[in-house]
Amino acid sequence: MISQLIEKIKSTNAPVCAGLDPMLSYIPEHVLLKSYDSFGETLEGAADAIWQFNKEIIDSIWDLIPAVKPQIAMYEQFGIEGLTVYKKTIQYCRRKGLIVIGDAKRGDIGSTSAAYAAGHLGQVQVGSKACRGFDVDMLTVNPYMGTDGVKPFVDVCDAEDKGLFVLVKTSNPSSGEFQDRLIDGRPLYEWVADKVVEWGAQSMDGAYSNVGAVVGATYPEMSKILRKQMPDTYFLVPGYGAQGGTAEDLKYCFNQDGLGAIVNSSRGIIAAYKQEKYKSFGPENFGQASRQSVLDMVADINNVL
Amino acid sequence: MISQLIEKIKSTNAPVCAGLDPMLSYIPEHVLLKSYDSFGETLEGAADAIWQFNKEIIDSIWDLIPAVKPQIAMYEQFGIEGLTVYKKTIQYCRRKGLIVIGDAKRGDIGSTSAAYAAGHLGQVQVGSKACRGFDVDMLTVNPYMGTDGVKPFVDVCDAEDKGLFVLVKTSNPSSGEFQDRLIDGRPLYEWVADKVVEWGAQSMDGAYSNVGAVVGATYPEMSKILRKQMPDTYFLVPGYGAQGGTAEDLKYCFNQDGLGAIVNSSRGIIAAYKQEKYKSFGPENFGQASRQSVLDMVADINNVL
Repeated sequence: MISQLIEKIKSTNAPVCAGLDPMLSYIPEHVLLKSYDSFGETLEGAADAIWQFNKEIIDSIWDLIPAVKPQIAMYEQFGIEGLTVYKKTIQYCRRKGLIVIGDAKRGDIGSTSAAYAAGHLGQVQVGSKACRGFDVDMLTVNPYMGTDGVKPFVDVCDAEDKGLFVLVKTSNPSSGEFQDRLIDGRPLYEWVADKVVEWGAQSMDGAYSNVGAVVGATYPEMSKILRKQMPDTYFLVPGYGAQGGTAEDLKYCFNQDGLGAIVNSSRGIIAAYKQEKYKSFGPENFGQASRQSVLDMVADINNVL
Repeated sequence: MISQLIEKIKSTNAPVCAGLDPMLSYIPEHVLLKSYDSFGETLEGAADAIWQFNKEIIDSIWDLIPAVKPQIAMYEQFGIEGLTVYKKTIQYCRRKGLIVIGDAKRGDIGSTSAAYAAGHLGQVQVGSKACRGFDVDMLTVNPYMGTDGVKPFVDVCDAEDKGLFVLVKTSNPSSGEFQDRLIDGRPLYEWVADKVVEWGAQSMDGAYSNVGAVVGATYPEMSKILRKQMPDTYFLVPGYGAQGGTAEDLKYCFNQDGLGAIVNSSRGIIAAYKQEKYKSFGPENFGQASRQSVLDMVADINNVL
């Protein structure tokens, strides 16, 4: 899988991932009202608005980027109706040839992680038939439970040629509370990084492993160290733009070959029309504003590589 | 919420929670075949079998226990169809007066955790209406992202009188890989425990906080220390029975007042009819086998308190 992602990063010349993390407050009034008109101010109405919003954005940007990262929480908050749109979004993006990274941060004891892995990346056996639940290409995973909570995800990736990004150093302000604490002189996230390398060693797919890492853009000094510590591990880098990470901060996430990282932006892309910079597009043309913001982000990042 | 849980623990005299974590391999053949007959060997067929299985078990045990803990992964693996049964199970249990602990182990950056909290415990605003997604009473939460990943859950609990169990020391074999590593002479899980106490300090509901902790039954020496460290924190204790924890191991999870912990068993209850001990019930009477296993588990635990 990681080799497919790299192919697409090269062909688009864009180490960029669009975070499809819709909040109702990002969705233009005309889209919301139309959905509420059809389905009421209900979970179904909210889900429809999200779907219409996503579809317009995907249609506007799909040819510029290799991958999208829907954050499942933004759908899960609307219950079954929201998750139905999560699935529909995944299917639509895959049909467009986009690689879909499910941002679910799942992780549990072994048998439970196996169920998550089957439902999100793999297949479940029902009688004599194999069925697929959400079927994303790659998934984010939480490492707090240790090896037996992560291994079932790796096994499914190996069987199905899919990929993971395991949380190592997250982009949020309080990520350091536990992740930065020193254990035998090294921060916890470096110990997690060692494990990610170990977990991914048997899952090489070309020059990189199918087991990647989440490394926030907001802590460049740490990315620099992690990049050296995990040369064969692809980084999914959140935190660019709205969360405060700049292109300059990002450059340490990449290897000398210009590969090794894919940078995510969510709000900065999908709610671009709300920014002063893209205001002239108007809410009616929010998709075109998103397209321009992707073009600008790609140029911004390629500028420092 | 925790005061309601305690009330129900006292009235049932059972500090026990049934883990509704159905795997297809736990479900008797006659239930599976009937569902496959109606819906085919599909996600819908699997979901129907899980629903029929859950319903029979809930009907057989609801009067004996205060709470159930459905593990969302076991439903999520069957995609939308599975999650629809997760929601149906929650609603059915709540109508029976059971407290429902959603075992979802969610946790992310602040805005994302806020979405999870709204969807699982609280409500989402859709236009002028407030809607509810899954609506459990209590939820398990992963602390790896630190305070800003947990705080949104606490806020919803405060607003809605609901509860949390934050992972401190999990029951799985590799939980020690990160959780037991020493930071300034104390294991990581003790530092997490300190934070759980801090996060829950403003959420007292009687003698205990609405912010509880997950403390595995499989590490009794650690429970002893955590019990002293977090006197006002309720423990959700997985790992009894099938995972290897015994009643003797559990006693350290309780305070002197006999309160402070609720012990979960999943496989041991819902797949009881498969055990040698309950084989005489036969697969046709799997609900009655579950009932007997609950009675035995309650007696076993009360014996050491």
